[in-house]
Amino acid sequence: MEEKVLIFGHKNPDTDSICSSLVKEILDKKNGCNCSKAVRLGKVNKETQYVLDYLKIEAPELIEKVEEGTKVKLVDHNEFNQSVEGIEKAKILSVTDHHRIANFATSEPLYYMAKPYGCTSTILFEEFKKAGLKIDKTEAVLMLSAIISDTLLLKSPTTTDCDKKALEELAKIAEIDVNTYGLEMLKAGTDLNEFSAEELINLDAKNLEKDGKKFVIAQVNTVDINDALKRQNELESAINKEIEKNDLDLFVLAITDILNSNSEIIALGSKAKETISKAFGKELNDNRAFLEGVVSRKKQILPNIDANI
Amino acid sequence: MEEKVLIFGHKNPDTDSICSSLVKEILDKKNGCNCSKAVRLGKVNKETQYVLDYLKIEAPELIEKVEEGTKVKLVDHNEFNQSVEGIEKAKILSVTDHHRIANFATSEPLYYMAKPYGCTSTILFEEFKKAGLKIDKTEAVLMLSAIISDTLLLKSPTTTDCDKKALEELAKIAEIDVNTYGLEMLKAGTDLNEFSAEELINLDAKNLEKDGKKFVIAQVNTVDINDALKRQNELESAINKEIEKNDLDLFVLAITDILNSNSEIIALGSKAKETISKAFGKELNDNRAFLEGVVSRKKQILPNIDANI
Repeated sequence: MEEKVLIFGHKNPDTDSICSSLVKEILDKKNGCNCSKAVRLGKVNKETQYVLDYLKIEAPELIEKVEEGTKVKLVDHNEFNQSVEGIEKAKILSVTDHHRIANFATSEPLYYMAKPYGCTSTILFEEFKKAGLKIDKTEAVLMLSAIISDTLLLKSPTTTDCDKKALEELAKIAEIDVNTYGLEMLKAGTDLNEFSAEELINLDAKNLEKDGKKFVIAQVNTVDINDALKRQNELESAINKEIEKNDLDLFVLAITDILNSNSEIIALGSKAKETISKAFGKELNDNRAFLEGVVSRKKQILPNIDANI
Repeated sequence: MEEKVLIFGHKNPDTDSICSSLVKEILDKKNGCNCSKAVRLGKVNKETQYVLDYLKIEAPELIEKVEEGTKVKLVDHNEFNQSVEGIEKAKILSVTDHHRIANFATSEPLYYMAKPYGCTSTILFEEFKKAGLKIDKTEAVLMLSAIISDTLLLKSPTTTDCDKKALEELAKIAEIDVNTYGLEMLKAGTDLNEFSAEELINLDAKNLEKDGKKFVIAQVNTVDINDALKRQNELESAINKEIEKNDLDLFVLAITDILNSNSEIIALGSKAKETISKAFGKELNDNRAFLEGVVSRKKQILPNIDANI
């Protein structure tokens, strides 16, 4: 049997990571790479589960680590600290991503396709088009769900004209009303009640590093920030445990209101006060700050923190 | 006036770095990016001068450094230690490259297009094709010269079918006999007599780093290794000066016979003996080793040294 090539998105996978892995496997197979296989690095979140249920398809298989020399293709991430255990010794054949490049290195040439778009699936959509490949309904729903998720229904400032164009075309193929479907999908992801505080702060957490300083930016979506803040105490103690366990300098949890496009952040750690003040011109009050109009970790939160930690 | 976007290849530019910068500028302009401007980071070598003379065009302007926030597009390299002074604070809009990715990071998303081909110009050739753009004679000569240079007339093991296909199609457009033109061009680059030893070892030198160990792999092409070795003594003293000046652990100079596809290396520095022995299973004799069939720094020399230093 031919050796499998594993395709996966980042740890704490979001809808783009899961959907883009599945779409990349399909695209590879259409291009004759039959050994490609989508897998995932963590639990499927509720928003993504909504998509899989809608399509009546199974989530990709969960993997915990890869052995030395395993052939892999990354989607929706490149930083090793957001990737699978063992990534340093894997053979990375390709990366398809829409993030900054950092904490990434290979010893051999590879395929790397990054575009500064709102979503990895928009890049994959363009690959279908360039290769003259037809997109079927399932593929369209996978890609449009990823775009809706990453751009919060095109409201995030990360949204580009290419994302808009892709979503429009995919919606026609899928015969879906994007606003109705999208809001249902996003809302499915905001049902946070059954998660423990530990789970919540890890649902969509990115591990980052800058000049030896370690920090995490986690994000949860909600339709009611105040409702989420009722759990501030237990969230803080979960965050403090995480800080201690991983020797972090900063942990930021962004609670993002997907209806009104704002975020409340909870920031803890030795660098919290100073970094948030410099990054956003806001002083922490009860470890919190309200960031008006801020919804994008990638474009609005990370660069500011990265430049000021 | 619109702000310029500078396009450049690596320091000690080779034919691919110069030609791909020029071609990328043309491609950008055809795509409506009129502010793109090819520049270069060092002296034009004799092989590249042969191409420019053939086409009766000027070399791109020389730059020494870039200011903070300068918009740049990299071709044919990504590692910061091979790039322009000030690259860490430049705004990198895109990279088009065919090397491994290392010592590279951005704080924001960007366009990154890498393919594990023999030459950057082959990637650019595919971009012309995908965009449905016509390639004229000058563009074809620029791209085919880069491909001939990087693949040593398709004889280097870095050569892929895509490079072959591109070269074939470009030769038809250019109405050139690839072997005649290519050999003349490569030979022009082997005329090393008028260079000082210091210049020779820096003509095509790549600065590399692994776990804090600093090393350089330089390469010169020749049609007669023995002729080049007549200058071994003065080459060694130039190399030793470089080692001392830059606190290097290893300096490898590969003297590559482009007719017979072999290389003789001169290796100096505290890590020379051990690294070369482990990397190639060859003991240094008079600081030299003959590497049969080895012509590619990227595919045959660098990975072995990188894994064993």
